[in-house]
Amino acid sequence: MEEKQKAAAVVGAGSWGTALAMVLADNGLGVRLWSHNEEQVKEINQFHTNKKYLPGIDLPELIVGYASLSDALANIKHVILAVPTKAIREVIRKIQAVVTSPIMITHVSKGIEPDTLMRISEIIKEEMPEELLDAVVVLSGPSHAEEVSLRHPTTVAVTSENMEAAEEIQDLFINHNFRVYTNSDVIGVEIGGALKNIIALAVGITDGLGYGDNAKAALMTRGLAEIARLGTKMGANPLTFSGLAGIGDLIVTCTSVHSRNWRAGNLLGKGKTLEEVLDSMGMVVEGVRTTKAAYQLAEKYEVKMPITRVLYDVLFNGKNAKDGVEVLMGRSKTHEMEDLVNILDERNI
Amino acid sequence: MEEKQKAAAVVGAGSWGTALAMVLADNGLGVRLWSHNEEQVKEINQFHTNKKYLPGIDLPELIVGYASLSDALANIKHVILAVPTKAIREVIRKIQAVVTSPIMITHVSKGIEPDTLMRISEIIKEEMPEELLDAVVVLSGPSHAEEVSLRHPTTVAVTSENMEAAEEIQDLFINHNFRVYTNSDVIGVEIGGALKNIIALAVGITDGLGYGDNAKAALMTRGLAEIARLGTKMGANPLTFSGLAGIGDLIVTCTSVHSRNWRAGNLLGKGKTLEEVLDSMGMVVEGVRTTKAAYQLAEKYEVKMPITRVLYDVLFNGKNAKDGVEVLMGRSKTHEMEDLVNILDERNI
Repeated sequence: MEEKQKAAAVVGAGSWGTALAMVLADNGLGVRLWSHNEEQVKEINQFHTNKKYLPGIDLPELIVGYASLSDALANIKHVILAVPTKAIREVIRKIQAVVTSPIMITHVSKGIEPDTLMRISEIIKEEMPEELLDAVVVLSGPSHAEEVSLRHPTTVAVTSENMEAAEEIQDLFINHNFRVYTNSDVIGVEIGGALKNIIALAVGITDGLGYGDNAKAALMTRGLAEIARLGTKMGANPLTFSGLAGIGDLIVTCTSVHSRNWRAGNLLGKGKTLEEVLDSMGMVVEGVRTTKAAYQLAEKYEVKMPITRVLYDVLFNGKNAKDGVEVLMGRSKTHEMEDLVNILDERNI
Repeated sequence: MEEKQKAAAVVGAGSWGTALAMVLADNGLGVRLWSHNEEQVKEINQFHTNKKYLPGIDLPELIVGYASLSDALANIKHVILAVPTKAIREVIRKIQAVVTSPIMITHVSKGIEPDTLMRISEIIKEEMPEELLDAVVVLSGPSHAEEVSLRHPTTVAVTSENMEAAEEIQDLFINHNFRVYTNSDVIGVEIGGALKNIIALAVGITDGLGYGDNAKAALMTRGLAEIARLGTKMGANPLTFSGLAGIGDLIVTCTSVHSRNWRAGNLLGKGKTLEEVLDSMGMVVEGVRTTKAAYQLAEKYEVKMPITRVLYDVLFNGKNAKDGVEVLMGRSKTHEMEDLVNILDERNI
C-alpha cells in the first residue's frame, strides 16, 4: 500500500478541484479525484478529460477518478475539499464517516454560511471529530481554474491556525507556474475570499448599467474598504485585504468574463430578475448567498457596509439597480478610512 | 474685482486639468484655465472645446482660457496644478514670480523626481516661498479624465498636511458625479499615485506577452505589496495603499485601454524598444521616469522591490521581458506580507 505522503485526494471534480488536481499531479503526486457523478469518473479514467468543467484540457494520468469516497480517502493524509459552500456540511459528514486516521483538510471554497454566519474552516471543525482532523488549511487567491489548467502563471495564499500545516500545503502545491505564499490570517483570508463575490456581483451590475472604469474602480476600492472594516472587527489583519485573497482575488473576479458572479451581476444590470439570472447560469453563484450572510454579519458586528446593503436590497427587496448606485454616490462626505481606524483602536492595535 | 473664493485657476490644460476645470465649473465656480499654448487658449474661448485632449466634449462657459499666467492667477486663492511631473519645478517658479498673496496649491500629478527622489508636494514646498503658500493639497484616485468629462461617477481622495485645507478642497470639488474622500496620509497618497504607473507598465508588458488574468492580478497585488513596503518605510500608513490612491488608481490604470502607461507596457511586451514606444506615444509616459526614481528609492530605503527591479532592467538594461516574468515566478517561497511586518515593527506601529 502506498505511503500517506505520496498521494492526495481531491474531493469535488468541478473546474477548480480538477485544476488543483492537475497542479498536484504536475508535482508528481498521485491524485484521487472524487466525484459523486459516476459518468464523470468514467470519463476521467477512460479519456483523461473533464469536458464539462475544463473543456479542451487533457488531464495527467496521475489523476485517477474515484466514485467511492472511502476508496478515495483510504490511507490518505491530504484531502483537498473543492465543493460549493452549500455542500460543505454534507460532504464533511460523509468524509468523517469513512476516514479512520487523522487527515489534513485544505479547503478551497469561498463563502459564509447564512444564519450560522460560520466561515468554512469553522464548519469543517464543527463537523469533523477532533481526533480525525490533523489541521484545516485554506487556499485562496486570484485563480481562474481555466488558466491554472493551461499552466499560466498563478499565485495563491495558504493559511491555517497551524502554520506548519500551511507550509506543508505550500510545499505540496508550489511549482514554477503556481506560486504559493503563506499568510497567518485565517479570518482575513476566508472573509476576503467570500465577500469579494459580493463586490463582483455589484461591479457586474454597474457594468451592465453601462457605467465606466472610474465607477468600477471606485466600487472595487470602496467594496474592499467595507470588507476590511467587517473583517477587522471580526479579528482579521486589515492588511490581508490588500493581499492575494483580498484585492488580488477581487481584481480577477471583477475584471474577467470567466467570473460567474460578475456575469450574474451583469445580467441583473441589464434588467433580468434574480430568478431569470440563476436559472440561466446553471452553476452555483456563491455571491448571492454570501450577500445575505454579509448583510447579517454587518448587522451582527454593527459595521457600515453601504455597498452590501444596497446589493441586498437589489437582490432580495426588488430595489432598482440604478437607484442603488445613486444612493452610493449620494452619501455624505467621509474620510477614506471611516470607521476602520476606530475599529483598530477598539481592538488596541 | 471678484472675491478670492469665487474663482479658481487650473494651471495646465491637458486632459486631466481640463476635466477638473469642468468639475469646478459644474459647481458654479469661474475657472481660469491656463495653457502655454495660445492656439489652445483661443480654441477654449472661441469654441469651448479642447479637442486634442478631450475630443467631443463641450466645455462649460464658466471655463475661460488664459495664456498669461499672471492674469490667470490675479487675485486667486485656489490653484490646481495639472502639469507633468517633469514640468513641476519650472511651472512653480513661474507661479511664484507672478503671485502677490498666498495661494493654496492642489496638485493632481503623479510622479517622483529621479535623483532628488522628492514627492511633488515636496518640490512645490521647496520652490514656493513660504509666505506665498497657504497650503499644498494632493488630489489623487481612480479617474480617467475622459470619464470625468462625461460626468460618469468618479471617486478621488484629497490629502494635505493641513487637513482643513484638504476639507476646503473636498468642498470645492465634491458633487453628485465626483465623490471626494479625505485622507490624512500625504506620503501614502503621493507614493501610491506615482508608483502605480510602474505596475501599469509591468501589467501592460505581461498583457503584451499574452499572459492571463491570474498573472495580471498577481502582478497588481504583489506590485501593490512592494509599493506598500516602500511607502511604509518612508512613513506612510500601509492602509492607504488599499484605498483610492493605491489599489483604486492601480485598478483603473491597469484594466483600461485609456491608460498611457499600460499602453506603453503593452507595446514593450509585443517586442518594441523603449525608444520606439516613447516616439509612438506622443504623450508623457510618467511610469518610465518613475521606474528610475522607484529603483533609486528601493536602494536608498533598502526595501525589496522585485517587480520594480525587473522592470528597471527591462526598460534601461535591455533585459528580455519574458525572462523578467520568469525571474518573478521563480522567487523563493515567502510569507505574503514579507518585510512589511518588520517595517511596521521598526516604526513601532
